[in-house]
Amino acid sequence: MNRRMILFLSLRILTAESVLFLLPAGVSLYYGEKSALCFLLCAAAGAAVSVPLSFLAKPRDRVIYAREGFVTVAISWILLSVCGALPFFLSGEIPRFTDALFETVSGFTTTGASILKDVTALSRGMLFWRSFTHWLGGMGVLVFLMSFTNMSDRPIHLMRAEMPGPIVGKLVPRAKETAKLLYIIYMILTALEIALLLIGGMPLFDSVVHALGTAGTGGFGIKPDSIAGYSPYLQWVIAVFMLLFGVNFNLYYLLLVRRVRDAVRSSELWTYLSIAVFSTGVITANTLSLGRTFSETLRNAFFQVSSIVTTTGYSTVDFDRWPQLSKTVLLLLMLIGACAGSTAGGLKVSRVVILFKTVRRELQRMLHPRAVRVLRLDGKRLEESVVSNTCSYLAVYVICLLTCFLIVSADRFDMETAFSASAACFNNIGPAFGAAGPMASYADFSVLSKLTLTAAMLFGRLEIFPLLLAAAPSTWTNKRPKFHF
Amino acid sequence: MNRRMILFLSLRILTAESVLFLLPAGVSLYYGEKSALCFLLCAAAGAAVSVPLSFLAKPRDRVIYAREGFVTVAISWILLSVCGALPFFLSGEIPRFTDALFETVSGFTTTGASILKDVTALSRGMLFWRSFTHWLGGMGVLVFLMSFTNMSDRPIHLMRAEMPGPIVGKLVPRAKETAKLLYIIYMILTALEIALLLIGGMPLFDSVVHALGTAGTGGFGIKPDSIAGYSPYLQWVIAVFMLLFGVNFNLYYLLLVRRVRDAVRSSELWTYLSIAVFSTGVITANTLSLGRTFSETLRNAFFQVSSIVTTTGYSTVDFDRWPQLSKTVLLLLMLIGACAGSTAGGLKVSRVVILFKTVRRELQRMLHPRAVRVLRLDGKRLEESVVSNTCSYLAVYVICLLTCFLIVSADRFDMETAFSASAACFNNIGPAFGAAGPMASYADFSVLSKLTLTAAMLFGRLEIFPLLLAAAPSTWTNKRPKFHF
Repeated sequence: MNRRMILFLSLRILTAESVLFLLPAGVSLYYGEKSALCFLLCAAAGAAVSVPLSFLAKPRDRVIYAREGFVTVAISWILLSVCGALPFFLSGEIPRFTDALFETVSGFTTTGASILKDVTALSRGMLFWRSFTHWLGGMGVLVFLMSFTNMSDRPIHLMRAEMPGPIVGKLVPRAKETAKLLYIIYMILTALEIALLLIGGMPLFDSVVHALGTAGTGGFGIKPDSIAGYSPYLQWVIAVFMLLFGVNFNLYYLLLVRRVRDAVRSSELWTYLSIAVFSTGVITANTLSLGRTFSETLRNAFFQVSSIVTTTGYSTVDFDRWPQLSKTVLLLLMLIGACAGSTAGGLKVSRVVILFKTVRRELQRMLHPRAVRVLRLDGKRLEESVVSNTCSYLAVYVICLLTCFLIVSADRFDMETAFSASAACFNNIGPAFGAAGPMASYADFSVLSKLTLTAAMLFGRLEIFPLLLAAAPSTWTNKRPKFHF
Repeated sequence: MNRRMILFLSLRILTAESVLFLLPAGVSLYYGEKSALCFLLCAAAGAAVSVPLSFLAKPRDRVIYAREGFVTVAISWILLSVCGALPFFLSGEIPRFTDALFETVSGFTTTGASILKDVTALSRGMLFWRSFTHWLGGMGVLVFLMSFTNMSDRPIHLMRAEMPGPIVGKLVPRAKETAKLLYIIYMILTALEIALLLIGGMPLFDSVVHALGTAGTGGFGIKPDSIAGYSPYLQWVIAVFMLLFGVNFNLYYLLLVRRVRDAVRSSELWTYLSIAVFSTGVITANTLSLGRTFSETLRNAFFQVSSIVTTTGYSTVDFDRWPQLSKTVLLLLMLIGACAGSTAGGLKVSRVVILFKTVRRELQRMLHPRAVRVLRLDGKRLEESVVSNTCSYLAVYVICLLTCFLIVSADRFDMETAFSASAACFNNIGPAFGAAGPMASYADFSVLSKLTLTAAMLFGRLEIFPLLLAAAPSTWTNKRPKFHF
């Protein structure tokens, strides 16, 4: 275990965050807000601590393995969140630290669940920082650093630990170049959305903030009614871009290098789009009597489906008031999530596809116990390690979700609220149903519930395993690991 | 595919059911009820159809394989349920056939969910038949026939398909003898409970009916308030026996042959008991303010935990009114269920144990990708086929449960009712929360919901795979099967 390298990388993350604080500081200064001071102070303090320490901790051996990758990601994300919460707390705009932490973790994990009862009371600098954390967390902070600095000799282990999905491959031979390519695609798509929102007449600040929130599939808004107050054109733009950011970014790369046929062959993509179309159809039919016109009903259905399946969490209506069938469809979409290799949360469509294939193989095996069958995805052979990882992931996913549900049940809410809030935080969506609905907030949850949901957001974003590995004492020894639980 | 043998076995099941109709007919005659006629009519009709046909269908080749086992079990259970519903329907005591089918499937699958608003309106014969289906369905109808007739040359395939749990082993070299042993243990325990209930002053009819319901972990009662009206002693007896019937019957066999050390070594048993004790503790603490005395609170908590974890469904209080934490504990118990090889439903404790072990191995694998690790349960090596079967089972379990939830959501109930009713039927418990709570019934659900829940009960009892295999066209051909879904 290369502990020195883990420390070094974590300190680097802190330095990076300190530099990034300058962006919201700039926004605050532009709007002449006091909060600029908090950001500058945090930036200075962070740099003052991390830069000298990282020089001291500089390791000779820069080689890391899977183990260091997982632990670094776990530690970095906790560090990022705690430090990222300081501006909210120090400025007094979010008076309680647990609340500030909830909000920051919700930002970085691209959840978008908020403890703010009135979001408009926040300064512009804070609103920008909140949404910027979505953008950073979406594609991955370590992946970001990896792309633009010379951080590690084996960055693929960091990338694997931080990027969601069952299979993280390299697009080009070098992991660093892959990360850079992904980030460039991400930036281009974000810029495109800002442009389209500006054309539709949305103010610049609103456009930037919403584009950051859409790109990270986060969902922090700046209005009490989320996106409901904007024009149908703007709602369509955001709905379509949410769906686009839920697609595996590898496919955009394939499109860029004109391997269209390879991109179109992705069964995950088609399953994802089919789920979105089918769900929109069911909800449109189910809510037809609620809207004024068919086009409004269709728009609301599509917007909510796109928002929930990509785990973003923007809303144009109070979907908590929809009939139960529509609510159940949304709840199931929360669990499925969007494509692997995107900025979305949830189980991921590719895992669902692999699970279906596994069940099918099991049925065949029951009839012909001796036959050996290889699973394939998009024509490629699925390694047995991926299959067993996916199955274990489902198991640990269910265990984590139900544990969170159990703890949140000790709060004073009903079953619908407790379960959907757990699902919405664990899958990084944000709004849920009942007392945690899209027009409500998480403000009234107990401290225990808030801390549990904060942990759930982190577990969901990092796909559970890195945090479990970092918490197991045997990971830290150099011996053959044993887990007891 | 030995279709002739499948037909033959299914007809034999029908003959057996016709003979078994004589029992409730006897009860009806004893109490001088008109319903005796219905039972006798059904018995005569069933025998008249099945006996001559089974002579015609008698196969030369009596050898069956796994495939025939699954299909026979699926067809027999559907046949049993349809014919078993006839007395309810013909007597007019349950006027709608879909309702009668719901009630019968609920009986055979040991669910105990009822569409009756007033159970006391039923004749004694019908009440007995309802509870007797629990007893038959608990240990398995084919297993019952297997034990006492010379049905098939390879009965192990029938036993594997009908008995719940990931591993069905033979206690003694011959499957038929194993089945007989299990049934004898089952009868002894049932008789013991009847005796203890009689000693406590419960009338004979009540004692028999409740013992049958407890033994099958079914839960059909004969009073509107289930077990609430009986004395604390009787409640304790039933609570303890529910827990006993949730234990793997193999352990009782080990006790019988004095291999106490082997019996005590079962990690499933200890996990099961720990879950029961822990849940009772949490609920007792959580409901302390509701009961009059501590002993009453403890008794109610233990009774409900025992009833739900064994998927029986009797109740002594309206647990739908408990605080959310207690309700969540019960909901989680519904999903887990009791031990494999018992009469209980749910995922089964041994599957949960295997899933935890799989997750642990996956964590180890992530750190040391090349190491090969074998999973062990109670000192014995777990076959990889059992591990992969368990993982696939979890996947298909989640898919079935959520599909049922989605369809039931189209009904006019809230999320709590729709989800908990789905979970309660799929896991063969019976009472759920909200509009399907322990003091309510399933009478007001739509026909679509009732049919869906009926299917869910069958899928849950037969552990999904047999019904999926029977429904796949490729199972029926002799070619190498392909599944498309």
